[in-house]
Amino acid sequence: MKPALVSVIMGSDSDLPVMAEAVEVLEQFGVEHEVTIVSAHRTLERLVDFSKKAHKRGIKVIIAGAGGAAHLPGMVASVSPLPVIGVPIKSSNSIDGWDSVLSILQMPSGVPVATVALGGAKNAGILAVEILSVANPELARAVAGYKKKLSSEVKKKAARLEKMGASVYLGRTGEKVESS
Amino acid sequence: MKPALVSVIMGSDSDLPVMAEAVEVLEQFGVEHEVTIVSAHRTLERLVDFSKKAHKRGIKVIIAGAGGAAHLPGMVASVSPLPVIGVPIKSSNSIDGWDSVLSILQMPSGVPVATVALGGAKNAGILAVEILSVANPELARAVAGYKKKLSSEVKKKAARLEKMGASVYLGRTGEKVESS
Amino acid sequence: MKPALVSVIMGSDSDLPVMAEAVEVLEQFGVEHEVTIVSAHRTLERLVDFSKKAHKRGIKVIIAGAGGAAHLPGMVASVSPLPVIGVPIKSSNSIDGWDSVLSILQMPSGVPVATVALGGAKNAGILAVEILSVANPELARAVAGYKKKLSSEVKKKAARLEKMGASVYLGRTGEKVESS
Amino acid sequence: MKPALVSVIMGSDSDLPVMAEAVEVLEQFGVEHEVTIVSAHRTLERLVDFSKKAHKRGIKVIIAGAGGAAHLPGMVASVSPLPVIGVPIKSSNSIDGWDSVLSILQMPSGVPVATVALGGAKNAGILAVEILSVANPELARAVAGYKKKLSSEVKKKAARLEKMGASVYLGRTGEKVESS
Amino acid sequence: MKPALVSVIMGSDSDLPVMAEAVEVLEQFGVEHEVTIVSAHRTLERLVDFSKKAHKRGIKVIIAGAGGAAHLPGMVASVSPLPVIGVPIKSSNSIDGWDSVLSILQMPSGVPVATVALGGAKNAGILAVEILSVANPELARAVAGYKKKLSSEVKKKAARLEKMGASVYLGRTGEKVESS
Amino acid sequence: MKPALVSVIMGSDSDLPVMAEAVEVLEQFGVEHEVTIVSAHRTLERLVDFSKKAHKRGIKVIIAGAGGAAHLPGMVASVSPLPVIGVPIKSSNSIDGWDSVLSILQMPSGVPVATVALGGAKNAGILAVEILSVANPELARAVAGYKKKLSSEVKKKAARLEKMGASVYLGRTGEKVESS
Amino acid sequence: MKPALVSVIMGSDSDLPVMAEAVEVLEQFGVEHEVTIVSAHRTLERLVDFSKKAHKRGIKVIIAGAGGAAHLPGMVASVSPLPVIGVPIKSSNSIDGWDSVLSILQMPSGVPVATVALGGAKNAGILAVEILSVANPELARAVAGYKKKLSSEVKKKAARLEKMGASVYLGRTGEKVESS
Amino acid sequence: MKPALVSVIMGSDSDLPVMAEAVEVLEQFGVEHEVTIVSAHRTLERLVDFSKKAHKRGIKVIIAGAGGAAHLPGMVASVSPLPVIGVPIKSSNSIDGWDSVLSILQMPSGVPVATVALGGAKNAGILAVEILSVANPELARAVAGYKKKLSSEVKKKAARLEKMGASVYLGRTGEKVESS
Repeated sequence: MKPALVSVIMGSDSDLPVMAEAVEVLEQFGVEHEVTIVSAHRTLERLVDFSKKAHKRGIKVIIAGAGGAAHLPGMVASVSPLPVIGVPIKSSNSIDGWDSVLSILQMPSGVPVATVALGGAKNAGILAVEILSVANPELARAVAGYKKKLSSEVKKKAARLEKMGASVYLGRTGEKVESS
Repeated sequence: MKPALVSVIMGSDSDLPVMAEAVEVLEQFGVEHEVTIVSAHRTLERLVDFSKKAHKRGIKVIIAGAGGAAHLPGMVASVSPLPVIGVPIKSSNSIDGWDSVLSILQMPSGVPVATVALGGAKNAGILAVEILSVANPELARAVAGYKKKLSSEVKKKAARLEKMGASVYLGRTGEKVESS
Repeated sequence: MKPALVSVIMGSDSDLPVMAEAVEVLEQFGVEHEVTIVSAHRTLERLVDFSKKAHKRGIKVIIAGAGGAAHLPGMVASVSPLPVIGVPIKSSNSIDGWDSVLSILQMPSGVPVATVALGGAKNAGILAVEILSVANPELARAVAGYKKKLSSEVKKKAARLEKMGASVYLGRTGEKVESS
Repeated sequence: MKPALVSVIMGSDSDLPVMAEAVEVLEQFGVEHEVTIVSAHRTLERLVDFSKKAHKRGIKVIIAGAGGAAHLPGMVASVSPLPVIGVPIKSSNSIDGWDSVLSILQMPSGVPVATVALGGAKNAGILAVEILSVANPELARAVAGYKKKLSSEVKKKAARLEKMGASVYLGRTGEKVESS
Repeated sequence: MKPALVSVIMGSDSDLPVMAEAVEVLEQFGVEHEVTIVSAHRTLERLVDFSKKAHKRGIKVIIAGAGGAAHLPGMVASVSPLPVIGVPIKSSNSIDGWDSVLSILQMPSGVPVATVALGGAKNAGILAVEILSVANPELARAVAGYKKKLSSEVKKKAARLEKMGASVYLGRTGEKVESS
Repeated sequence: MKPALVSVIMGSDSDLPVMAEAVEVLEQFGVEHEVTIVSAHRTLERLVDFSKKAHKRGIKVIIAGAGGAAHLPGMVASVSPLPVIGVPIKSSNSIDGWDSVLSILQMPSGVPVATVALGGAKNAGILAVEILSVANPELARAVAGYKKKLSSEVKKKAARLEKMGASVYLGRTGEKVESS
Repeated sequence: MKPALVSVIMGSDSDLPVMAEAVEVLEQFGVEHEVTIVSAHRTLERLVDFSKKAHKRGIKVIIAGAGGAAHLPGMVASVSPLPVIGVPIKSSNSIDGWDSVLSILQMPSGVPVATVALGGAKNAGILAVEILSVANPELARAVAGYKKKLSSEVKKKAARLEKMGASVYLGRTGEKVESS
Repeated sequence: MKPALVSVIMGSDSDLPVMAEAVEVLEQFGVEHEVTIVSAHRTLERLVDFSKKAHKRGIKVIIAGAGGAAHLPGMVASVSPLPVIGVPIKSSNSIDGWDSVLSILQMPSGVPVATVALGGAKNAGILAVEILSVANPELARAVAGYKKKLSSEVKKKAARLEKMGASVYLGRTGEKVESS
C-alpha cells in the first residue's frame, strides 16, 4: 500500500456520515488517503502530534471537518505547514450551522483554512485533488474529466426535461422518455 | 508579591484595550493577577504549556479574550481543569462580532467556556471575583458591596433625572442640580 | 443529607429535558444539588427571595436555564452575589435560539452571566464543578480525570475507525471490530 | 400639577437621548407623564416597587427602554397589570441591536410587551397616546389629527419634489421653490 | 349581543391556527370581539374601509397577524387611530420568521405597531385586555388575577419538581406524586 | 406552436418542484414558454450560448432559479439584454436560504436581477406576465383579472370565517356552512 | 413633453439621495419618467389613487424605494397591474438593512415585487429600461450597448493594472502610466 | 522574468486595496505572480478565456476576490481545473459582508472554492504558497519559517506585556521598556 497523500480527520465520529463523502471522492480519483478522528477539545496532544508529523509522513493535504465551535481545522492549520481544508458541519446543538461556518472561516492573518460550504465534504475531497494536481499532471487531467462529466450529466437532464416538459419530468423521472 | 490567582490572557496585543477592563476590575477588588498574550494560532505550544501548568502555579481562574475565529478560550479550556471565562472581541475583519461570539460560546459537551458579552471584559473580571469568592467569604462580601454601589449610583441618577426632567438632564449633566 | 452546593433552576418545566443533563453531571461528580422552577416572568418575588437567600443556604453556584426572551439567569445574577451559569434553551416559538442566546449573553457591565452553548446544560454542570473545585482539590482532580476519560474515548473510536475504514464504521458501529 | 398617566423609564441614563423622543411626543399631546431610571439589573427592588405601585398612582401606560440583554420592559410587565411598551436601544457593545430587540420582543406566554422598532421611542410615545385614547375621545381626535398632519407634510414635500425634480430638490431643499 | 371591542384580523386563513389563541384569550376574559380576514395585498380597499370604520363601530383595539413580508398590521395602523397589535407569523416560505418580525416591528416614526413575539397571538390577546383595562377597572383586576394564576401554577410545578426530583418528574409528569 | 416568450431555467433538476410553479402560472395565462436546465457551475458554455441567443429566438423574459451560492440568474443577466427574474431556492445544504437570497439579490451596479421571495417561483411567473403586458394590453387585463380573483377568494373566506367563528372554521373547513 | 413611462416613487424625501440614481439612469437612456413621494404609512389614499391610475396615465413600470418596515413597493404592487421594482434602503434606525430587504422581497403569492440589491437604485433604473425594451427594440439595443460599455471600462482598468502592478496603481490612479 | 504561478484577480479595482495584501505575501515568499481585473458580471468572455487558459500558461493557483453577490471565484472554479481561493470583500452596499461570504462559500457539489475570511487576502496569499509547496519543498520550509516568525513575534510582545503590565503597555507601546 502506498502512503496516504490526504488525511481526512474529524472532531467526532458523529461527523463521519458527512465526512465519508470526502473519502468517496478520494477513492474515485484513486488518491491514497487515511481517515481518523482528532478532537481539538478532547485530544489536543494528539492534534499537536498529528499536525507536526503529517507532512513528514508524506501527507500533502489535510481535510478537517467539525461542528459547533469548530476549532479543529484552525488548530491543525496553526501547527502544520500543509494546506488545511475545513468542512463546517451542522451539529445537533448548532445555531443553524453559523457557529461552525464562522469558527472555521474567520481565521486570523497568518493561519488560513481553505473553507468549503456547510456540509461540503465532497467539495473538500475535490479541492484536495485539485491541490495535489499542482504536482501531478495526471490528476489535473482527471479533474478536468470530472468537471466534463458533471457537465454532460446536466446536459442529458436538460435534454430530457426539454423533451418531457416539467410536469411529466416531475411525475416519472425519465423512464418513459427513455423508452419512447 | 503574592502569586496570581487570575490569569488574564488574550490572543493578540490588539485585544488589550478591551481586556484591560478585566485587569482594572481585578485591581479594584485587590485580586492578585497576571496578564499576558497567548495565541492559539501562533503559539500553540505556549498555550499547551500555559494551560497545563496554570493550576499548578496557583491560578484559580483564567480569563481569555479573542476575536474572529476565536479559539483561545476553548483550547485553553480543553487542557486546563480550571474554569475558563471567554471574552468575545470584535476584531477588525469581524462579521459584526458574530464570529467571535459563536466560536467561544458554542463549545462541545465536556469542555465549557463561561462566555460573557461581546467586549464584556469588565464582566469577565467580576465573574472571576465571584468564582474566587466561592472559597473566600471576604470577596463574597466585596461583590455584594460592589453590586450595592452600582445600585446606589443608579438611584442617584434617577433622583437627579426626576428632579431635572429629561431636557435639562440631557443639556447639562447634573452640575446645576448639585449646586441647587 | 448534605446541603446543596449547586442550585439548578429553570423558567418552566418544559426546560427540564434539557436541564436534566446538568443534574446528571452533578450526580456523576457527587456534588450535592437541588433542582426547581423559578420563573422570572411569573414568579418574580420567588426569584428575588431565592436569589437573596441562596448563598445563605450554602449554595455556591447557580445554574439557570431559560428560553425565548430569557431573563431568568440575568435577573438572578442581578440579586445574588454567587456566580450564575446561564443555559440558553431553544423554546417552541424561538427564532432559531438567537433570542435566548442574546438575552442571556449580552448582560450589561456589573452583572455577568457565565453563558454556555445553546442547550449546553451538560457543560453548565461541568462548569459548576470546575468552579467548586476552586475550593476543593478533590473535585479538581475529578475534573481532570473526566477530561482524560473524554480523551481516551475519542482515541478508542479513532483507533477503531482507522482499523475499519469509513464505510465499515458507518455500516456497523464497531461490533464487528470488537469481535475480531 | 395633575398626576402622570404615562411613566417613561429606562435602564440607564445613557438611554436618555433616545427615550427623550417619547417624552417630547407626550408633551406635544399634552399628556401628563414622568421620566426616571429603573435598572432591572442594578435596582431590582426599585423595579418591583415601581411596578407594583405604578397603577395605584394613576399611571395607565409604562414606556420602558433598554439596550443589550434588555430585561427591563419584560420584568416590569411581569409585575405590573398595566400595558408596557418596550423600546429596544442599540447600546455600545450591542450586536447590531439584535440583542435588545430579541430580549424585549420574544416574551413568553402570559407576559406581553408591546415592542416598537429599534430606537423607536417616538413611536412608543404615540402608541401610549393611542392606548390612553381608548378612554379619552379627545386624545383619539388628537391622534387622528396627528396622522393627518403627517400626511399633509408628505404631500407638501411630494408637490415640491414633483415641481423641482430630483436634482434641484437634492441641491437646495425647497427655499428656491418657496420664493417662486 | 354587545358590539365587539377587539377586532382580530389576519392576512390569510392559514394564519388562523395561530391567531385563534388570541381569540381564546379574549373569550376567557369575556371581552367582546370579532374575527375576520383582511389581506393587505389582496383586499386593500377592504383594509382601508375596515381601518377607517373600526373605531366608529366601537372597536377599541385591533390585533393583526400576518406572515412573510407582513404589511397588514402596519397598513391598518397607518389608517386607524386605534392601537394596533401586530403578531408576526412564521409562514411556509418564511426565512425563519425574520421577514415577518422585521416587517411588523420596524415601523417608521408616526405609525407604531405594538409588536409581540413570533407566533405570540396569546400575548396579543392579553395585551389587548390590558389596553382595554385602561378604561375598565374590572378588566384590570382580571389581568392581575390572571398573572397571579400563572404564578401559582408555576409554584405548584416547582413544588412537585422539588419533591420528585428531575428524573421522576420527567418520566411520569406528576400523577404519582399527586396520589402520595 | 408559437415560439416561447418566457424561458424558465434552473441550475439543477432538484429545483424543478419549486420552479414548476412558475411554469403553471405561465400556462394559466396562456403565455408561450420553455423550460430547461442551465447550470452556471457545470455548463458555463451552455449558459453563455443560451444568454447570447435567447433574445434572438424571441424570448422576452428569463426566469432563473437556483440554490446555495446561486450564480445562475446573475450570470445570465450579465450576458443577456433581457430582464432576468431570479428565484432563490432553499437547497439541501443551504444556510436557511440566506445564501441563495443574497447571491441573487445583491448584484453589482449595471447588472440587475429582479429577485422574488425565497421559493417564490409562482410570483416569478406572475412578474413575467406583468412584464410582457407592457407590450400586450390583453395580458395587462388578464393580470388585473387575476388580482381581482385573489381578492374575491379572500373575501369569500372572510365571510365564511365571520359567519362560523374561529373554532368552527378551524375544525371543519367550510363545508358545513355551505349547506346551511 | 412626452408622458412618463416610468414612475420613480419613494416613501420619504430622505430616500431621495439613493433614488436619484434611478432617475439618472432613466435620463441617460432617454426614458420619460416622473419622480415623487408616496408614503404607504402616511398617505395611503394617495398610494391607492396613484396605484389605480398609473397604468391609465401611460406609466409602464413603477420603481419604489423605501426603508425600515418598507411597505411601499408591496402595497403599490397589490393595487397596480404594472411591474413594480422595489429598492430596499438602509434608513437611520434600520437593523443593518435587513428590515427593508425582507419587507420588500418576501411578498406572498400573487403579488410579486421585483427586488434589487440594498441601495440598488441604479440597477432598478436599468431593470426598468430592460422591461421597457420588451416593447421597444431601440431600448434593447441601448441596453446591450450599455453592458458593452461596462465591459470595455473594466478591460481598460485591467490593462492599466496589469501594466502598472498593484502598488503603483493604488498610489496614483493611472495618470502616470498614461503619460509614459 | 519567470512565468507567474499564482494569478490574483478581482472583480473591480475597488477591491484592490484589499487584494494587494495577497500580492504582498506572494512577493515576500518570492512567488511569481500576476494581478489583474476580471469581472464575472461585466466581462464574462474574458473570464471564460482566462479560466480556460490559466493552467496552460503555467498558473498553478488562482486567488479571486469579489464583493456583494460575488460570483467571480465560483465562476472561475467552474471552468478552470486549478484550485481557486476565494476572498470575500465587504463592498459599499454590502449587507455586512454576509452577501459576499455566502456567495463564495456555499458552492454546489463538484465546484469547490477554497474560501478564506472576510477581507482575508493575506491569508489567501499564504494558502496559495502552502498549495504550491505541495510540489516545492523549499516553499514548504519557507511556510514553516513564516509560522515560526509569527510565533516569535507573539512571544516578544507577550514578554513585553508581562514586564510592563497592561496600563503601561497601552500608554506607550514598548519603547520605554526597550531602553530600560
